[in-house]
Amino acid sequence: MSQPYRALSDGSLPEVLAAMPQVREQLGGAFTQWSVQEVGDGNLNLVFIVKGPGGSVIVKQALPYVRLVGDSWPLPLARSYYEHMALTEQTKHVPKLVPKIYHYDRDLALIVMEYLTPHIIMRKGLIQGIEYPLFASHIAEFMAQTLFKTSVLAISAAEHKRRIWAFIDNIALCKITEDLVFTDPYRVAKLNRWTEPFLDDIAAEFREDEKLKLAVQKRKLQFLTSAEAMIHGDLHTGSIMVTPLDTRVIDPEFAFVGPMGFDVGAVIGNLLIAYFAQAGHEERPGARTPYRHWILVQAEQVWRQFNKRFLELWDASKSGEAYMPELFTDPQGAVAFAAEKQRFMRSLFADTVSFAGIKMIRRVLGLAHTEDLESIKDPAVRASCERKVLNLARRLILDADKLTGIGDVTIAARGVLAAQ
Amino acid sequence: MSQPYRALSDGSLPEVLAAMPQVREQLGGAFTQWSVQEVGDGNLNLVFIVKGPGGSVIVKQALPYVRLVGDSWPLPLARSYYEHMALTEQTKHVPKLVPKIYHYDRDLALIVMEYLTPHIIMRKGLIQGIEYPLFASHIAEFMAQTLFKTSVLAISAAEHKRRIWAFIDNIALCKITEDLVFTDPYRVAKLNRWTEPFLDDIAAEFREDEKLKLAVQKRKLQFLTSAEAMIHGDLHTGSIMVTPLDTRVIDPEFAFVGPMGFDVGAVIGNLLIAYFAQAGHEERPGARTPYRHWILVQAEQVWRQFNKRFLELWDASKSGEAYMPELFTDPQGAVAFAAEKQRFMRSLFADTVSFAGIKMIRRVLGLAHTEDLESIKDPAVRASCERKVLNLARRLILDADKLTGIGDVTIAARGVLAAQ
Repeated sequence: MSQPYRALSDGSLPEVLAAMPQVREQLGGAFTQWSVQEVGDGNLNLVFIVKGPGGSVIVKQALPYVRLVGDSWPLPLARSYYEHMALTEQTKHVPKLVPKIYHYDRDLALIVMEYLTPHIIMRKGLIQGIEYPLFASHIAEFMAQTLFKTSVLAISAAEHKRRIWAFIDNIALCKITEDLVFTDPYRVAKLNRWTEPFLDDIAAEFREDEKLKLAVQKRKLQFLTSAEAMIHGDLHTGSIMVTPLDTRVIDPEFAFVGPMGFDVGAVIGNLLIAYFAQAGHEERPGARTPYRHWILVQAEQVWRQFNKRFLELWDASKSGEAYMPELFTDPQGAVAFAAEKQRFMRSLFADTVSFAGIKMIRRVLGLAHTEDLESIKDPAVRASCERKVLNLARRLILDADKLTGIGDVTIAARGVLAAQ
Repeated sequence: MSQPYRALSDGSLPEVLAAMPQVREQLGGAFTQWSVQEVGDGNLNLVFIVKGPGGSVIVKQALPYVRLVGDSWPLPLARSYYEHMALTEQTKHVPKLVPKIYHYDRDLALIVMEYLTPHIIMRKGLIQGIEYPLFASHIAEFMAQTLFKTSVLAISAAEHKRRIWAFIDNIALCKITEDLVFTDPYRVAKLNRWTEPFLDDIAAEFREDEKLKLAVQKRKLQFLTSAEAMIHGDLHTGSIMVTPLDTRVIDPEFAFVGPMGFDVGAVIGNLLIAYFAQAGHEERPGARTPYRHWILVQAEQVWRQFNKRFLELWDASKSGEAYMPELFTDPQGAVAFAAEKQRFMRSLFADTVSFAGIKMIRRVLGLAHTEDLESIKDPAVRASCERKVLNLARRLILDADKLTGIGDVTIAARGVLAAQ
């Protein structure tokens, strides 16, 4: 049944899907009745919506190159393998927060998944000013579960090493992050772009800001060496689909065993981008003030609820190679252990804040921008929003160890918004 | 030519070696002329000295169990594979500081190496009060080269991940460290032993010292998650063979990609054990005072020369995925980068000091003790030395972040020695 890889099209897809029993069942009818629409607007892959008499599915197929750039930038099809493996692991811990998998074909680098409807990409919702009352608790739950339960706080050393091994060859996708997130924005690089000429000054300033560059390189070293947990690796608001009541995390093809704060920082950093982008989307100045406030409350809630859930999982855990609970059973031990967990979370908070800042900068000065800002037509307005993103981001990176809590982050965000 | 695994003996070994051209050449003559002596006094393996008309070799063969404990504790033969791989990597960087490899047989879990003579295990030299004037610079060079050059400060992310992958399944040997070094000494464990009844009080005290236990667990987490460089993994003075002019590091079967400070801490911690053990070996009180002083100077020199050589290698490096030199080329950048390197080394120093303390404690309260202390016949004298080891070790672990340099460590050691 195995087929050699070829990029599929609207025309060739139905016959391929017809060979997959679970997909056939989901779509119903004969494959000739299925309609196909290619909708991929991401940077890397083909994405098809397939509809049949009985239902719909999403088909995601990796291309052997970066879609955003073209076939001059090859990229291994194996990313689909890592995506499927990560999704399978996430499904174990938070089945309701990820799409259901119907079929995976390794040769075709193709995953058939639940078609999420009426979900939209959260980033688009944030641009429209839509509130998602359950988002913060959902994403906090997603991160607490997937990060805690794939860490040695919960699992054996052997299981941890097996997972490191399983993801270690996802080198190409990690390298994209290493280059585009941690390096290019801080040097003259062909792939960089920003809103010219408005941001020329601050782009040059960042390339010469030694403290900033060193702080970012310290985090790059952490990204390269810290095998804390299986992370999503690209957890921005474009990797989250929402309705007011439901939240699903998609696209974990950047997954590997890395630093937890990279995921948490991605969520918070992208909320902060959305915060500053509102000025480009409001009908009149100030119209989005309540929504801006809502976004910052979400950023706070994401951290606070993540912090709470992570600690609850830790308190409930009886296993885990590190900090074995049996070492801290008497009352004094329990008190000291609780304090140590708080210390751990403060350290993770600093990681989070710093990675948030780093993710914000790459979206303004690097290759891949975000729709929140890109969709602002007036370049002067866009640049004004982007400059604020950069100013807050730099502060988060430089002050990561000094900020005492998420409240300090949102206060700083308000300060940057208010500043001239 | 491949043979199934079986533990070899004095009788069966020569015929096996006779099939290895490089070994045959080294030994000379016919295999019937070769003499074999099993000399393994380590915890894990068979070790044979084989002598022929033309020369000698050492043959190290893994047993499928822990020799110290017996076949009730199985241990994978694959550790020989990791040892050979680590030795091969070390040979690239410091060929003069490791034994030459003549042959490796994966199936037999057997490595044939240079017979080092008149080298002795450094620990035995320290017991005898012998000075090794080149030791500190040699071991500093060994560590600086092997740690720096297998880190992402020197190599690409892809090479780093390949090395993580290559060592990731050395799970069983890492697990020995996780259990015996980081866990058992801090709980009631069947394998623990100490000089009873003299140390019963402090052993109990350590099991109830919440701050100490948490500090050690924090380091265990680091050992489990920090993939900084290929480390030797068991770099105590029993893994170093010396003459006054030569130094060779042996036995890297615990190698994996882990935290650099674990190796540096092992060397310094074991020097500090030797320092406190002198009271059990001097002919009259005070006879070894100059030698004690010499040991502490070596501990200082090990750190200082390691620090110096590591920074020299870093300054000379043009590659490396983290802290790419091209980001810091202008004069201001160079100054800031130099300061960041100092910060990195301070952090590595804190790791080193803490791991040193942890390695010291496991040698007094855990399963595997060291000859420095074990060879002290009078249990009261031995316990007195061991108590000092424990007292300094605890201080190193708890104050790792406060100690400003290696001088603070040796001052603390003198303080503990002088205290009643």
